[in-house]
Amino acid sequence: MTDLLPYVAGVPLVDHHCHGLVRTDLDRTGFEELMTEADTVSPLGTTLFDSLLGHAIRRWCAPVLDLPAHTTPDDYLARRAELGATEVNRRFLATTGTTDFLVDGGFRPELLTDANELGTLAGARAHDIVRLELLAENVLRAGTTAAGFAADCAEALAKHTTAVGCKSIAAYRVGLRLAGARPDDAEVHAAAGRWLSDVDRSGAVRLADPVLHRFLVWLAVEHRLPVQFHVGYGDADVNLAECDPLLLTDLLRATAPSGVPILLLHNYPFHRNAGYLAQVFPHVFVDVGLATHNAGFRGGALIAEALEVTPFGKFLFSSDAFALAEHYHLGTLLFRRGLSDFLRTAIEADTMTSTDAAHVTDLIGHANARRAYRLDS
Amino acid sequence: MTDLLPYVAGVPLVDHHCHGLVRTDLDRTGFEELMTEADTVSPLGTTLFDSLLGHAIRRWCAPVLDLPAHTTPDDYLARRAELGATEVNRRFLATTGTTDFLVDGGFRPELLTDANELGTLAGARAHDIVRLELLAENVLRAGTTAAGFAADCAEALAKHTTAVGCKSIAAYRVGLRLAGARPDDAEVHAAAGRWLSDVDRSGAVRLADPVLHRFLVWLAVEHRLPVQFHVGYGDADVNLAECDPLLLTDLLRATAPSGVPILLLHNYPFHRNAGYLAQVFPHVFVDVGLATHNAGFRGGALIAEALEVTPFGKFLFSSDAFALAEHYHLGTLLFRRGLSDFLRTAIEADTMTSTDAAHVTDLIGHANARRAYRLDS
Amino acid sequence: MTDLLPYVAGVPLVDHHCHGLVRTDLDRTGFEELMTEADTVSPLGTTLFDSLLGHAIRRWCAPVLDLPAHTTPDDYLARRAELGATEVNRRFLATTGTTDFLVDGGFRPELLTDANELGTLAGARAHDIVRLELLAENVLRAGTTAAGFAADCAEALAKHTTAVGCKSIAAYRVGLRLAGARPDDAEVHAAAGRWLSDVDRSGAVRLADPVLHRFLVWLAVEHRLPVQFHVGYGDADVNLAECDPLLLTDLLRATAPSGVPILLLHNYPFHRNAGYLAQVFPHVFVDVGLATHNAGFRGGALIAEALEVTPFGKFLFSSDAFALAEHYHLGTLLFRRGLSDFLRTAIEADTMTSTDAAHVTDLIGHANARRAYRLDS
Repeated sequence: MTDLLPYVAGVPLVDHHCHGLVRTDLDRTGFEELMTEADTVSPLGTTLFDSLLGHAIRRWCAPVLDLPAHTTPDDYLARRAELGATEVNRRFLATTGTTDFLVDGGFRPELLTDANELGTLAGARAHDIVRLELLAENVLRAGTTAAGFAADCAEALAKHTTAVGCKSIAAYRVGLRLAGARPDDAEVHAAAGRWLSDVDRSGAVRLADPVLHRFLVWLAVEHRLPVQFHVGYGDADVNLAECDPLLLTDLLRATAPSGVPILLLHNYPFHRNAGYLAQVFPHVFVDVGLATHNAGFRGGALIAEALEVTPFGKFLFSSDAFALAEHYHLGTLLFRRGLSDFLRTAIEADTMTSTDAAHVTDLIGHANARRAYRLDS
Repeated sequence: MTDLLPYVAGVPLVDHHCHGLVRTDLDRTGFEELMTEADTVSPLGTTLFDSLLGHAIRRWCAPVLDLPAHTTPDDYLARRAELGATEVNRRFLATTGTTDFLVDGGFRPELLTDANELGTLAGARAHDIVRLELLAENVLRAGTTAAGFAADCAEALAKHTTAVGCKSIAAYRVGLRLAGARPDDAEVHAAAGRWLSDVDRSGAVRLADPVLHRFLVWLAVEHRLPVQFHVGYGDADVNLAECDPLLLTDLLRATAPSGVPILLLHNYPFHRNAGYLAQVFPHVFVDVGLATHNAGFRGGALIAEALEVTPFGKFLFSSDAFALAEHYHLGTLLFRRGLSDFLRTAIEADTMTSTDAAHVTDLIGHANARRAYRLDS
Repeated sequence: MTDLLPYVAGVPLVDHHCHGLVRTDLDRTGFEELMTEADTVSPLGTTLFDSLLGHAIRRWCAPVLDLPAHTTPDDYLARRAELGATEVNRRFLATTGTTDFLVDGGFRPELLTDANELGTLAGARAHDIVRLELLAENVLRAGTTAAGFAADCAEALAKHTTAVGCKSIAAYRVGLRLAGARPDDAEVHAAAGRWLSDVDRSGAVRLADPVLHRFLVWLAVEHRLPVQFHVGYGDADVNLAECDPLLLTDLLRATAPSGVPILLLHNYPFHRNAGYLAQVFPHVFVDVGLATHNAGFRGGALIAEALEVTPFGKFLFSSDAFALAEHYHLGTLLFRRGLSDFLRTAIEADTMTSTDAAHVTDLIGHANARRAYRLDS
């Protein structure tokens, strides 16, 4: 890895998928539990600092907290506690060069800063992404009926007047092996009825029904709101075998005529499959967020693989930062380094000019996201 | 990327899978629609020249049309129109160093040059590959019966006396999750009957029946004609989740004793899976055509991955060029560059001698294809 | 590839998955049949020395037999015969720097050295791994009943007092699409009854029943013996489409609370999927054995991919050497070279210090295996 290409170092970013930050200080276990997708530190393994991500934190985050590069985990966490969560969050956000954050506030909202607070901390614009399953669960909690569920969801969605997109976590609940067609009213009615009965019986409000996930996606499409999908890599709750983006093919084929963007998040280790979808479906966009910082210095290899067949007009930046401000710093830095390495290789192979590379940087860094989410409208 | 190894630069090629070329001039949209596997240019993306393939065209194709490297798309297309399709086709074909083209003429034949015309343009030998589904559809169009279908197909295939192989596009019609055993006469009879009824009812002649695709493959095997399969990457018509070559395992196991070569085309992004099949099944050959040029300077990375476990005696070159002569130029050039990079890395790591590398080049460049298709018999 | 980092060159290894060696001399066909996962040399291909593995043998094994690097296959095999199998085995084992071999003696035991003999030849410790399916088949051969099968298996397993772990080859028999929960006694009883009837009818003793494979895994877990799974790459007997480690997700989720290690072997070409499992499940460990030497100089690329998200505390070394002592030499050497290249790249990118790299080397080279298998207890 060499120096960043100047236009990559300087490009303003739109982070099209990210989350809030913890406001409280963390002990070592608490920190490690938020570092990777592992729920906790295994007694059978070693510290999670023994990973490419752990090394990246010690290398790239330590200096932001006035520590030498490669400091020890304990020294790092001591300094972090000394500065306090708010200062730490502010410092890391200040490094990102991000002008717009598209914030998915639907996971553990009680723990994390919301979009407004994040934007204020960062001195940047923050936009809301509506978590579709949470919307439906809130509709249910507020009181609905099997017959009224669809209209109540539509009404709830219409209230999100400032939202720039929606997100589906069908991957976490039922997997991505979804049918394509919009479920008709009778199907939605029946599925909502089943869900209401289940909730009555179990007391647990957790949507996990292929018809209803699909209905919500179509609802967003009908509201002309871009739809993000969690795809691929996630925590142990996911059944990754059912999270290959190719399983969405029928739904992508069915939604293509709408012209509403579908944005496939993360995608690792299926990022090449995602790239194929981005090439052949006019409304599909992809990223390799989350993996970019988890894979440390290997992030560039992932970007290069993802861009083999993805048109440059269909690839986006996201950090998928969650809870730890380090994720914002690393998600952004390792993305810039990975993209820079990719472009430099292309330039050195004389298959791209510097002008081309700067244009590609603009597309991926912000222009594609601005266009897909109509951020300037 | 450095200079080509001389034996890679000079090796005569057998292009074991390719298509005809358009004879007419193209405007920018028409050109872009034939560039990648995208059907058209998306208003949500940017030009398809914003891609590794687009950059490769500007870098490597422009000079063949007397333009500077990295020229703009519009200048490129203006010059292309000025020269005219025939001259453009001739120029690009002249760069390939290909002695034998194995031409799949079954897709959009009304639009494209046939094998003879291509061979004449290139000053090279052209061989026919019989598209199995088209053969069956022509049998039906000519008039057949459920009981007579199998024999009529056999008779039709026997008429292709100069064909060197067949091709199955089961991947596009029903996916590759095919059973292994040859369907017996009663099964073929019944399946043909269903198909004839469907055609009667719908008026559309389009074969998509797992039993019949499988029957046609076995028919080719019984005629001792090598069988190509479309595998992996293709346009939006394909359901890529059902195009993993591993889904062919039962059929490969069943056909292995025949000793008739099965050739898995493209394979991206499943090229490592294909390599495994080429190692363990004696009659399986693989390539990474199509992706090689779509991925631009990343073609070499794909070749390196594919060759991890594929024996060098089982890997083939193909361009999968289709419609645009640029595909011939780039499919060939980027293959040579990728193979050269792979071999150079091996030589520099001192795990291969130059003599070894030249031998591997001969195998992959032409000798494997000559042996598999018995081109010298 | 440059010189090995000194701590990688010198690290003592625990080879957590390997097999015995042939004791007899081999002709060229006999040698090639044991080289790769191909059963035999195909008349449609060329010699299997035409492969990355073949080149690695000529490059790295020839000098151990006093021949020049890159010698011809025939000269290599002539010298091999001259020295005799025992001397060849001793020489290659002496190069490995392995202190502990965990030997799976369950495949073709009549042909190969057992664990004791291997340890003696190598001057190292050898530990037994119990092949679960062979244990069950021996229980059946010794005489059991549907009702007594479970207890008989438990008793047989308890007799393996020195075994450090077990191995499941469910992948070879039924694939990895296994349910999670421990089958209850009635299910095991019924499945054993079906199997006993099948054996009575067919005369063939070959376990291939999802309930019984799963029962055996749980039996090992209940005995607190670490369980290895064959995953991914293998010979033509495997249906690789059903050997993706992600198919084990339910079983991994169910066994996680036990705290008994599950060790996913080989994994190629699904090694990234395996890395995800190692990150999110506390008891999952992974390796890229077998592929490391089959892929020759590309072994390092596989290690780098596998380590993208695998914590360094969860990655193991194995050679998966089988029958040919060359596999021990290459499995070890190419692992050291690949790991060294990976670490050197990280150091050169300044994301890892040399101290970090030495620590990672110790973890992967031996410490993780010692901890997972409690070799020091």
